[in-house]
Amino acid sequence: MSFQKLDDLGRKLEALEHALSILGADEATHMAVGGGEKRAEAMSNLAGMYHAQATAPEIADWIAAAKPETEDQRLALVEFERQYVSATCLPTEFVERKTAATMRSEQLWRELRAKGDWDSFLPALEGVVALVREEAQLRADATGLAPYDALMDQYDPGNRTADLDPVFADLKSFLKGFVPEALAAQDARLAKRPRKSLNGPYPIEKQRELGLAAMRAVGFDFTHGSLAVSHHPFCGGVPTDVRMTTRYRTDEFLSSLMGVLHETGHALYEQGLPKDWSHWPLGKARGMGIHESQSLFVEMQLARSPEFWQFALPMVHQYLGEDAIPGWDVADVLNEVNFVERGYIRVDADEVTYPLHVILRYELEQDLVAGKLEASQIPEAWDTKMTEYLGISTINDPKDGPMQDVHWPGGAFGYFPSYTLGAMIAAQQWAALEKVQPNLRSDIAKGDFTGVNQWRADNIWTQGSRWSTPDLITRATGEPLNTDFFKAHLKKRYLA
Amino acid sequence: MSFQKLDDLGRKLEALEHALSILGADEATHMAVGGGEKRAEAMSNLAGMYHAQATAPEIADWIAAAKPETEDQRLALVEFERQYVSATCLPTEFVERKTAATMRSEQLWRELRAKGDWDSFLPALEGVVALVREEAQLRADATGLAPYDALMDQYDPGNRTADLDPVFADLKSFLKGFVPEALAAQDARLAKRPRKSLNGPYPIEKQRELGLAAMRAVGFDFTHGSLAVSHHPFCGGVPTDVRMTTRYRTDEFLSSLMGVLHETGHALYEQGLPKDWSHWPLGKARGMGIHESQSLFVEMQLARSPEFWQFALPMVHQYLGEDAIPGWDVADVLNEVNFVERGYIRVDADEVTYPLHVILRYELEQDLVAGKLEASQIPEAWDTKMTEYLGISTINDPKDGPMQDVHWPGGAFGYFPSYTLGAMIAAQQWAALEKVQPNLRSDIAKGDFTGVNQWRADNIWTQGSRWSTPDLITRATGEPLNTDFFKAHLKKRYLA
Repeated sequence: MSFQKLDDLGRKLEALEHALSILGADEATHMAVGGGEKRAEAMSNLAGMYHAQATAPEIADWIAAAKPETEDQRLALVEFERQYVSATCLPTEFVERKTAATMRSEQLWRELRAKGDWDSFLPALEGVVALVREEAQLRADATGLAPYDALMDQYDPGNRTADLDPVFADLKSFLKGFVPEALAAQDARLAKRPRKSLNGPYPIEKQRELGLAAMRAVGFDFTHGSLAVSHHPFCGGVPTDVRMTTRYRTDEFLSSLMGVLHETGHALYEQGLPKDWSHWPLGKARGMGIHESQSLFVEMQLARSPEFWQFALPMVHQYLGEDAIPGWDVADVLNEVNFVERGYIRVDADEVTYPLHVILRYELEQDLVAGKLEASQIPEAWDTKMTEYLGISTINDPKDGPMQDVHWPGGAFGYFPSYTLGAMIAAQQWAALEKVQPNLRSDIAKGDFTGVNQWRADNIWTQGSRWSTPDLITRATGEPLNTDFFKAHLKKRYLA
Repeated sequence: MSFQKLDDLGRKLEALEHALSILGADEATHMAVGGGEKRAEAMSNLAGMYHAQATAPEIADWIAAAKPETEDQRLALVEFERQYVSATCLPTEFVERKTAATMRSEQLWRELRAKGDWDSFLPALEGVVALVREEAQLRADATGLAPYDALMDQYDPGNRTADLDPVFADLKSFLKGFVPEALAAQDARLAKRPRKSLNGPYPIEKQRELGLAAMRAVGFDFTHGSLAVSHHPFCGGVPTDVRMTTRYRTDEFLSSLMGVLHETGHALYEQGLPKDWSHWPLGKARGMGIHESQSLFVEMQLARSPEFWQFALPMVHQYLGEDAIPGWDVADVLNEVNFVERGYIRVDADEVTYPLHVILRYELEQDLVAGKLEASQIPEAWDTKMTEYLGISTINDPKDGPMQDVHWPGGAFGYFPSYTLGAMIAAQQWAALEKVQPNLRSDIAKGDFTGVNQWRADNIWTQGSRWSTPDLITRATGEPLNTDFFKAHLKKRYLA
C-alpha cells in the first residue's frame, strides 16, 4: 500500500521530469528567441511543483511503512529514501537564500569573466562559499557524512574523500612525471610523421550524416532519440527520447565528430536504463562519475583508439567524400585526436593533462569547504598548483584561471572529481571487458560494438541506481577503483 | 488577496499549459518514434495535475471573495468563473467514463473508417451519443443554458441556437442556389481561360523559404514562433513561441502555401493576445469561431484575393525560380486557389460548398443531442441532406459520409458551427475594415499589411476573452453576425 503510494508519486514526478527535460532540450534547439522569459517562468513553476510533491512530509511515513516484497523493491526504497533525505535536508529558507545568491553570482560571473575582473566578482563568490559551507554542514548533519563528502554524495553517492584522496594523490604524482614524458614521445613521433593539414570546408549537412552514421555504428537507437544542433552540445531528453546535440564548424570536422561520440556515450547509458523502474530513483543513471565514464568510454577508450579508426576512416570518406583529408591514414588521425598540450583551460584539455586540472580544483574546494582557504586566496593557491602540476602560471590571468568554470559561481562544489573519476572508471571498465572478450580490439576494428555494448548493458546500464558508485565499480569490474588501469591506458596510448 | 490567489494559481496553470502545448507540438515535429508511450503517460499526468489544480474547491471561495479593482479585473473574474464552472460541472466519475468511451471510440474509428465499416463502428458511436446527451444535460443544469447551447458554449461562449439557426438557415437557402450559379460562372471563365498545368517538382527547401517569406510578409513575428513540418498541419505552442507546421508535396506548392497562410492567421491571433493577462482565461483567445475567423481572414479574405496575388506572384518567382509556373498570371493562380467543386469531404471543400457540409452536421448533431435522431439513423439522414444540399449521395459510402470526421467519434459535439461562423466573421471583419481603410486593397497589392493587422490587433487580438463571441463580433464590426457580408464576398469572388 505504502509502496504503491510511492509508485504513484514516482509517476507524477516522472511526468514533471519528462516535461522539464524536453522543455530544456527544446529551449536549446527549437525555441524562438523571444520565448525565453515565459519558458523560464514555466520551468521554474514546474520545478516548484516537482519540489513540493517530492518533499511532502507524508512521504517519510510511506517510506517507513513500505514493505518491499523483492530485493529490487528493497533497493528501490533505499535509494528513494536517500533522495528524499537529500531533497528535504535543507530548510526552504536556506534553499531560497542559496538560489538567489547563486543566480546573482552566476550572472555576475558571466558578465565579469570576459574582462577577468576577479576583484569585482570576489564578494559574490565569498557569499557563495559561505552558503556552501552552511549547506555542507546541513547535509552532514542529515546524512552523518563529513561536510565535503556530503556535497560529493549528491553527484556520486558513496564517494568519500577517504577513498578518493589516495587515488587522486597517486594519479597526480604519476601525471606530474608522465606529462613531460608524453610530450617528449609526441615530439619524437611528430618529427617522423608531421601533423597534416585539413582540406575543408566540410559542409555541415555532410558532417551531420557522418555523425549520425557514427552514432548508429556505436549503438545509438534512433527510435528512442535524435541529434540536433545547439550552441553548447549536450545529451538531454528522456530515456525513451534522448535529445543529443552537437555544433559544427566547417574548417574541420573532428571536434564535432568526437563531441557526437562523447554525447552518444551518455545517450547509450540513458537508453539502456531499466525501463520498468523509470519512475523510481532506482531506474535513473547512478551519478555524474558513472555517467562520465560512459561518455568517456566511447570517446576515449573507443573513438580515439587505432582500432576504431581502422573502421571509421572509410566512413569519413563515405560521408565527407573521397577527397576529404587526402593522404591521411589512421596514424594521422590519431596524431590529431590524441594531441597532448599543456593549457590553461580544463574543458580544452586532452585526457593526459585533464586530471591535473580536476585534482587542483578538488584540492582547493575541499579547503574552501573546510574553511582552510578563503575565496580571496584562490588566485594565489590556483597559481601555485598550476605552476607545480602543469608548469604554467595564471596569477595575472584570472579569466583563464579560477574564473574559467561555472561550477563555483553556481554553487556546485563536490562535482569536479566526477570528471576524472569517469576517466578512470572508463579505463577500468575497458580492462575488465578485455579480460572476458579477447577479440575486443579486432571487433572494434570491424565496427562491431555488440560485445562492448552487451557488457556495458549488463554491468552498468541495466543496473540503474541499485548500487553506490564505488559498489557499482566493484561489481562491474571485479575490484575497487584503481589507478593502474588509467595509467596503463595512458602509457599504451602516449608512450608507444 | 483572493484576486492574488487566483493570479498565483493562474501562473501555475499557465506553466502546465505551456508544458502541454510545447510537448504536444514537439510530439508532432521532433519526438523520436519510440518516445510516444512515455510522452502520452507524461502528458496525461500533467493534464491530471492541471485538472486537479484548476478545479480545487477553494477556488469557488476565492472567486466569491475576490474584489476586482479595475474593469479588466472584473471581466477577468467573470471569465475565470465561467471556465471554473465549465471545468467543475461534470462529476469525476462521468469524466472518467466519457474519456474511456471516447478514447475507445476514436481508436475504433481510426481502424474502421478506412474500411467504411459503419456497422461495426455504430455501437461505439451510440455509446458516445448517450454520454454526450448526459453531458449536455449536466452542462445545462450548471449553466442554465439549453443542452446543445451548453455544449456549443465550450467552443464559442455566447453562441446560441436561437441566434445561429436563422443565420444558418438563411445561408443554406442562399448557397443551395449559389453553388450552381458559381459553378456555371466558373465554367464560363474556364472556357475563356483554361486551367494551366504546374511544372514541378518544386523542391521542399525552396517551398519552405517561400512559406517563410509569406509568413513574414503578412506579419508573423519570428522572434516568437517558428515553422516546422508535421503530418497534419497545425498552429500550436504558446503565444511567446508559436509552433506552426505545414507539409509539402513536390508536384505542387499552392496547397502548402495556402495552408501556411491559414495557420499564420491563427498564429497572428496568438502572438497578438494581451501579454499581461497571459496567465488568466481573459488573456486567451476567445474561442474556436473567432480563432477560425482569424485564420480564414488571412487565407480566404487576403490570400485568395487578386490583390494579394499581385503582390505574391513575384515572390513565387523569387523563391521557386523564374521558370516556376511559366506563363501564369494572377488570374491563373486565382483559377486554382478559388476552384469550386462539389465533393464528399468537408476538409477538402472550397469556401463556397464548405458551409453546407457544416450546416448538415449542425442540424444533425442538434437532433442527436435532443434525442430526435439516433446514431443508427445517421447514414440515411446524412444522405438525405447531402443529396438536398449538394446533390451527391453517400448512402453506400460511409467512409466519405458520416465516418469522415473525428469530431463525433471523439465526443466533440457543438464544435462544427465554429468553422462556418469563422468564415462569416472573417467576411464581416473585412467589410468593417474596408469601411475605415479605403486603401485596403491597394495596400495589400503592395504587400503592406500594417493597416490590416493594426485593425485586427485593436479589435480582436488584444481583446483576449473579455467579451462573449457575439459581443466581440458586434464590438469589432459594429453589428451582430450578419450573412450579408459573406454572401457579398462570395458573389464578388465567384460571379464576377
